[in-house]
Amino acid sequence: MAVPAAAKVARGLAVSAAVLVLLWCVHFRGGLSLGSPTNKGLIFNVHPVLMLIGFIILGSEAIMSYKILPWSHDTNKMVHMLLHSVALFLGFVGIYAAFKFHNESGIDNLYSLHSWVGLGTICLYGIQWLLGITTFFFPGASPTVRRRMLPWHVRSGLVVYVLALLAAELGFLEKLTFLQASGLGRYSSEALVVNFTALLVILLGASVVLYVTAPTMHNEHTHGYSAVHKP
Amino acid sequence: MAVPAAAKVARGLAVSAAVLVLLWCVHFRGGLSLGSPTNKGLIFNVHPVLMLIGFIILGSEAIMSYKILPWSHDTNKMVHMLLHSVALFLGFVGIYAAFKFHNESGIDNLYSLHSWVGLGTICLYGIQWLLGITTFFFPGASPTVRRRMLPWHVRSGLVVYVLALLAAELGFLEKLTFLQASGLGRYSSEALVVNFTALLVILLGASVVLYVTAPTMHNEHTHGYSAVHKP
Repeated sequence: MAVPAAAKVARGLAVSAAVLVLLWCVHFRGGLSLGSPTNKGLIFNVHPVLMLIGFIILGSEAIMSYKILPWSHDTNKMVHMLLHSVALFLGFVGIYAAFKFHNESGIDNLYSLHSWVGLGTICLYGIQWLLGITTFFFPGASPTVRRRMLPWHVRSGLVVYVLALLAAELGFLEKLTFLQASGLGRYSSEALVVNFTALLVILLGASVVLYVTAPTMHNEHTHGYSAVHKP
Repeated sequence: MAVPAAAKVARGLAVSAAVLVLLWCVHFRGGLSLGSPTNKGLIFNVHPVLMLIGFIILGSEAIMSYKILPWSHDTNKMVHMLLHSVALFLGFVGIYAAFKFHNESGIDNLYSLHSWVGLGTICLYGIQWLLGITTFFFPGASPTVRRRMLPWHVRSGLVVYVLALLAAELGFLEKLTFLQASGLGRYSSEALVVNFTALLVILLGASVVLYVTAPTMHNEHTHGYSAVHKP
């Protein structure tokens, strides 16, 4: 099945943002290492990479999976759940990296808007995941309850996704402001790379939300969000 | 006509956020003055107050006006346009205050993600306003074109609104990070006031978007976004 143009745009943006965040953390910030004993900055670098590539980009793929994947409803549903599970797990590891960096560097935890929004988002993501599993997988609700829950699952899922995008934007701004307060040039290449990554993430989020909320056109392969698996 | 509960929630959040931003800028930051010759901080303070109360809160009222106001379609439409006009004007003055503060304090312009997203947002808001005026007021498009444009007007309007919310969140984080870099306590009362204002703005935005996108229920007074004035 041909991937729709809007989804191709979303994937192109996702790949570009992933390349830029790696360029930032590897080329400009010296690489990633969750266990670095001396250079604590390398522990921090795990955070933006995992939150963007693991949490947001895999989450975006999970959100689009029903509309984008060519397989049966059941297979797409399984991929949707597995992608969200991996995204949630990598999100947890990414947040662990931020706390580890803070603790080992003697920096306060949970004082910033980024941390509040970010932690709130992953909690809501976890609740959304748990409700999704129990309603649609195991033990699974009755077909009537599933049909009633589905629009709310989609709606609240998109709210959590937009919150994740907001948390990411706040994170880019916060880290860059710290770096600029420590002497990084305001118009330096690194600053431009970070800001352009953040802009790509906004465009990625907009394309994903517009793609999945757009009314389905003639596409026989699309099962869409209105289809509920009937056991 | 009784104001619907969801809109009451939105208005309650708007009033609370307005009170908090005034508490911040007047009580903690010393007040507002666009022409202050000595205390440049007072020029800056005009920016968050006008952007939140003028731009975002008036914009929220404008967005909700079709669903919330008890009058005829034509009157509601006029209020919708006038509120957006005032919001856009106050937004311009608010942005002027930020530039004036930067220029008179020798601070670089337009290097931060907040400034990029904010300036992009007000440009899109202006384009949206201009397209709205020319399509639905003067000279006004044909009924067929109006009917085709309306869902896009609503859709792109909400995208611009979410971008405005994002810009506001980035602004709160940026200013607070600057203040904390200059010695403000990370868990101080002022920091909490700013972060709670930012959280209220997220909740305000969510309630407005959910309210206007919710399917209309039995309410004979609501004209809704699907109604197009036929000349």
